[in-house]
Amino acid sequence: MTSIGNRILGWDVGGANIKAARIGDEGRPGPAVVERPFALWREPYRLPVVLSEVADRIGNARTMALTMTAELADCFATKREGVAFVIDAFRAAFPASELWVYGVDGRFRSAAEARQQPRQVAAANWMASATLVARTFPDALLVDVGSTTTDIIPIVAGRVAARGRTDSSRLRTGELVYTGSLRTPVCAIVRSVPVGGRRCRVAAEHFAVAADVHLWLGRIEEADYTCDTPDGRGRSRAEAGARLARMICADRETLDSAGITAIAEHVARAQVHQIGRGIRQVMRRLGSASPGVAVLAGAGTFVGRAAAEETGLTPRGLASEVGTATARSAPAAAVARLLSELVVTEGA
Amino acid sequence: MTSIGNRILGWDVGGANIKAARIGDEGRPGPAVVERPFALWREPYRLPVVLSEVADRIGNARTMALTMTAELADCFATKREGVAFVIDAFRAAFPASELWVYGVDGRFRSAAEARQQPRQVAAANWMASATLVARTFPDALLVDVGSTTTDIIPIVAGRVAARGRTDSSRLRTGELVYTGSLRTPVCAIVRSVPVGGRRCRVAAEHFAVAADVHLWLGRIEEADYTCDTPDGRGRSRAEAGARLARMICADRETLDSAGITAIAEHVARAQVHQIGRGIRQVMRRLGSASPGVAVLAGAGTFVGRAAAEETGLTPRGLASEVGTATARSAPAAAVARLLSELVVTEGA
Repeated sequence: MTSIGNRILGWDVGGANIKAARIGDEGRPGPAVVERPFALWREPYRLPVVLSEVADRIGNARTMALTMTAELADCFATKREGVAFVIDAFRAAFPASELWVYGVDGRFRSAAEARQQPRQVAAANWMASATLVARTFPDALLVDVGSTTTDIIPIVAGRVAARGRTDSSRLRTGELVYTGSLRTPVCAIVRSVPVGGRRCRVAAEHFAVAADVHLWLGRIEEADYTCDTPDGRGRSRAEAGARLARMICADRETLDSAGITAIAEHVARAQVHQIGRGIRQVMRRLGSASPGVAVLAGAGTFVGRAAAEETGLTPRGLASEVGTATARSAPAAAVARLLSELVVTEGA
Repeated sequence: MTSIGNRILGWDVGGANIKAARIGDEGRPGPAVVERPFALWREPYRLPVVLSEVADRIGNARTMALTMTAELADCFATKREGVAFVIDAFRAAFPASELWVYGVDGRFRSAAEARQQPRQVAAANWMASATLVARTFPDALLVDVGSTTTDIIPIVAGRVAARGRTDSSRLRTGELVYTGSLRTPVCAIVRSVPVGGRRCRVAAEHFAVAADVHLWLGRIEEADYTCDTPDGRGRSRAEAGARLARMICADRETLDSAGITAIAEHVARAQVHQIGRGIRQVMRRLGSASPGVAVLAGAGTFVGRAAAEETGLTPRGLASEVGTATARSAPAAAVARLLSELVVTEGA
């Protein structure tokens, strides 16, 4: 019999998505991974409630492992404030649970320690997944394309060989490319798109996002479009197409489907190039130590695969090793696993 | 004595700003131009009330001249729907007034006609100002940098020589550059910024806008920052700086003022280049007929001036001809003036 005692919940709390993964009672029915879109910056005060709802779905636990990127959300004046807020939300939601916060140095900290060292625990989720992936793939680039961002983490001779430790330094090194398969505004991916064979500037407005591009092209389904739509309308292909048309100040009366496809294909290619440039930058730095394999994770694995192929890497899906749900939410599963190796839980 | 009878109100109804200009009773006290930020896409149903409030401030009129760009707002499925909505809002706000809608062909239409020909009256505001500017500057580029967009309209031998007639075709020809001095997201202007002398990718998030850049650099005052702030915080220099820091996933604890200035200067330069590329594209098409003078209008005249200088044009301020308020809201004043030449108003 498994009980709450030897169960660990791993959490990856982002600004737009919350992911939880459960280990220690694999026999229990119900989901082992739960993903919940939540626009934290809009209603930060609801975070404790949302955390409780996620725990209700996946099953509560006495021990919680946490990694976060939510501290970057602009409802917080600083990362310090954001880290404290997220920790407080866990306290409020799970007063009886023990919380361990993962740091970019690979160590877990108590809530009190984490609060004192916000830069250590801010945006450490990539380190958790890379540490675990390194055991199976000792020489690889982990390419994790999420809804919002992409992590490109080199693993060399079984060790995580990333140079950046903060989001800022990772943006410089190419290890973080701020583009993802759902939430990224089209105007942050391209400056112009082809219209009737000629280049047309795009509107600098939040009219359409990457999810509209990939939905229009049939690379995701409506159910995968888990973020808000920019205009509050639906997630049908026609509605996504109308949003893409608006990027060139057109509408469905003035732009036909072929015109929208040309726009969507161009944006999708540009996003692959964006990630490809990050991959090449990381590979250049590694020189001859650069791995030949890309391990693909995240909700946007199909984008990562195209970028891997563009850069001559052999794509390997993390999903085939750990299952699709875990590969989509790799950091949440990783912090749970890493913590389980360190702590002796009650009843174990 | 002037009365409501020979007064005309000119309106430029955009998706983010409403501008009204009054002519025909220049002796009347009170503002001759009113500018009102209004995020139409968020609360479209409030448009009639907002129109009434603006008219209360500037003085009502029996005759109204209207030009609009609001039809592009993504609360409307199509431009047709947007045009009809704006016309209905005028009907609701001013049931006793006569409404004339300016078209991109230079003609005024009745409300009923305009509703039937949405493509003719959508986004015609640039044509109104250019037509009027052409009388004073028969050979010039009108460079109108607004809060959101920039119009670059060639005037050759006293005639408006624009090639594009719709926003889409104008984005292609360089006559419309979708960048402005306030609302434009930083992630739609640059892909990277200098940090510590090296290039750093930026976050693809609505963390900071052009207003933060120009406020930080002292080119606008807090009172000029009339759009919403991305994070809902204030418009102080410190708050603008924090928003700019977040563009590279930093905060004010990790990035100092010199670092923020480097980012802001880079973005400001990139915006000038963006407009400069539009100017050069328009000039290339005109060839030897290309004017040597740029007539500067709009809230972002300081940006337009830099772009004119970069492209070797002699900058001339429209403000010195028509006054600062009118130059900021050129299309509203222009449609009022153009209509006054066509209609005989009661009591005149």
